[in-house]
Amino acid sequence: MTDSTLQSWPADLVARAAKVKLACFDVDGTLTDGRLFFDEDHRESKSFHVLDGQGLVLLRKSGVAVAFVTARTSKVALNRARELGVEGHDSVKDKLACIEDLCARLGIGLDEVAFMGDDLPDLTVLRHVGLAVAPANVHPWIRGEVHWITGARGGEGAARELCDLVLHAHGKVEVLLAGGHP
Amino acid sequence: MTDSTLQSWPADLVARAAKVKLACFDVDGTLTDGRLFFDEDHRESKSFHVLDGQGLVLLRKSGVAVAFVTARTSKVALNRARELGVEGHDSVKDKLACIEDLCARLGIGLDEVAFMGDDLPDLTVLRHVGLAVAPANVHPWIRGEVHWITGARGGEGAARELCDLVLHAHGKVEVLLAGGHP
Amino acid sequence: MTDSTLQSWPADLVARAAKVKLACFDVDGTLTDGRLFFDEDHRESKSFHVLDGQGLVLLRKSGVAVAFVTARTSKVALNRARELGVEGHDSVKDKLACIEDLCARLGIGLDEVAFMGDDLPDLTVLRHVGLAVAPANVHPWIRGEVHWITGARGGEGAARELCDLVLHAHGKVEVLLAGGHP
Amino acid sequence: MTDSTLQSWPADLVARAAKVKLACFDVDGTLTDGRLFFDEDHRESKSFHVLDGQGLVLLRKSGVAVAFVTARTSKVALNRARELGVEGHDSVKDKLACIEDLCARLGIGLDEVAFMGDDLPDLTVLRHVGLAVAPANVHPWIRGEVHWITGARGGEGAARELCDLVLHAHGKVEVLLAGGHP
Repeated sequence: MTDSTLQSWPADLVARAAKVKLACFDVDGTLTDGRLFFDEDHRESKSFHVLDGQGLVLLRKSGVAVAFVTARTSKVALNRARELGVEGHDSVKDKLACIEDLCARLGIGLDEVAFMGDDLPDLTVLRHVGLAVAPANVHPWIRGEVHWITGARGGEGAARELCDLVLHAHGKVEVLLAGGHP
Repeated sequence: MTDSTLQSWPADLVARAAKVKLACFDVDGTLTDGRLFFDEDHRESKSFHVLDGQGLVLLRKSGVAVAFVTARTSKVALNRARELGVEGHDSVKDKLACIEDLCARLGIGLDEVAFMGDDLPDLTVLRHVGLAVAPANVHPWIRGEVHWITGARGGEGAARELCDLVLHAHGKVEVLLAGGHP
Repeated sequence: MTDSTLQSWPADLVARAAKVKLACFDVDGTLTDGRLFFDEDHRESKSFHVLDGQGLVLLRKSGVAVAFVTARTSKVALNRARELGVEGHDSVKDKLACIEDLCARLGIGLDEVAFMGDDLPDLTVLRHVGLAVAPANVHPWIRGEVHWITGARGGEGAARELCDLVLHAHGKVEVLLAGGHP
Repeated sequence: MTDSTLQSWPADLVARAAKVKLACFDVDGTLTDGRLFFDEDHRESKSFHVLDGQGLVLLRKSGVAVAFVTARTSKVALNRARELGVEGHDSVKDKLACIEDLCARLGIGLDEVAFMGDDLPDLTVLRHVGLAVAPANVHPWIRGEVHWITGARGGEGAARELCDLVLHAHGKVEVLLAGGHP
């Protein structure tokens, strides 16, 4: 079985993914299912998905920079980013400015950035990056603003689909299926 | 793309929403999926949805008063209300009386109130307000008592649908999609 | 609108429900979705549903005895029972013996008992009570052993459906819809 | 009603299951729904399913060895294994080597092992065991590598389906349905 028999993406989507050197992710509703759990002391919990974690680590190991970018102040998000070895930015008022800073640091352009988000605070970024993606649960006002909507919902593997697309576009899947590292 | 191409609501529903100056929400089953998590010490947690939080804040900033009204005694609900900058009322035995008090304070009538609820304790309020809404998971005995049932279930974006409707009826969507504030 | 227009149950099911004086419920998979949450110290949490809580309290107030009967040792289940004002029995090795004790105490027969359960430990009870019910997620080996399978899954309102059926069979719905108490 | 009327599996699957003396399970995404809950101190919780717990205990009591094998370092997984009386192995870098050790200890071959997993870290094991199974939520790159994909998703009873298949193949179901022990 070859990689090409496993999944198929439109050619223009693969072309966009082939250029990606930085993949950024909104957190709530994208890396999570949008649920914010609170206990009686208003301490927050949220759930990430093991499928996404696996994909984000593979993407990082394959040489693509990965960052979480969330407007919410969230220790949970920062800790999860640290655990996966990727960058975490919370309390971000202007997501586009944050990502432009990352681009400047990496010496890349916005056309080499993938961004995944689901709601109004992601709108401006989605309009400027080379690969704009949303999870299946995307807000209807955002739906028309992205290049691709994943089959999975946020927090249930949506981010993994973007990781898989980029890994495929970078030619890394065969070695993974042979049991190797990307 | 214009707002009108994004979603369509029946004209009479938009007319009701255009009059809304106060939007009130039941909590369990409406702003949550109805799940009450308990640990071994019977401490309670519940999950709110980031989509709803985004909508409730936009609604408040657009000038509509927002309140949570729950029969259950719940610090979790009050804390979430405070975090979003809206009013929280728990341990409410008579929801209609509570909302009539809010109306008196705001100098508005019940026909200018939207209420969203899903079960028997919401029944009397739903019969008296100008815009009565229920989430998709509404109890069958309540189903016939509302003007609108949202597509989403409670805790999964149902409240956001009501926020979006009111924002639309108040003509606030174009500016939001242009990246501005309501 | 009358009660009879809201829902319809087969006549023989209503006849069984009309005789019910004691309603007993398995916990995990029936009053919950079967998920057992554990933290790093193996402390257990589980989620009950507000729809079920509402129904169980109405059923109790209408004069039907209510009990939780679980094989698992679970403080969470006992606390939830206490909060709702119903009986809680955990660490129950023989569910039929437990329910026969309850019957003896109440001076009723097994034909006046409703039991709801979803898996093998519930099998013997389900074969002996007057009204045997399972949630939609019932294990396939139990499926043929009950009089009724609810539309809802455990922890998502399945128990409420049984409460509603008994309230209906006891003629309590009209007063509830008029805003009164059962 | 006889066991054979309850469920049907392909004959070759039952033949593979009849040989099983050791059943091993990946944890996240297989025994759980893949969600990793984190609180503000990055303490991890996860949810197991009562259906799976019931099946794993019955399988163990019927004489089949049971083990959890996870790459993640997870006290939660080890504690759940201990509670069920089965083996728990976490922080496993090479799942095949771990299972070969278990086989050597039990004096059995890989053709007598069932393994259930859903993602890339499970790939090598799935290619070597006698009965390779995945939950419904299996990653697309793994889908073609197993003998059977269960109807249920991980953490919602997928493991129970494998337990039931092995119990059936070992002729243990009739006695269970008669209220006895396997």
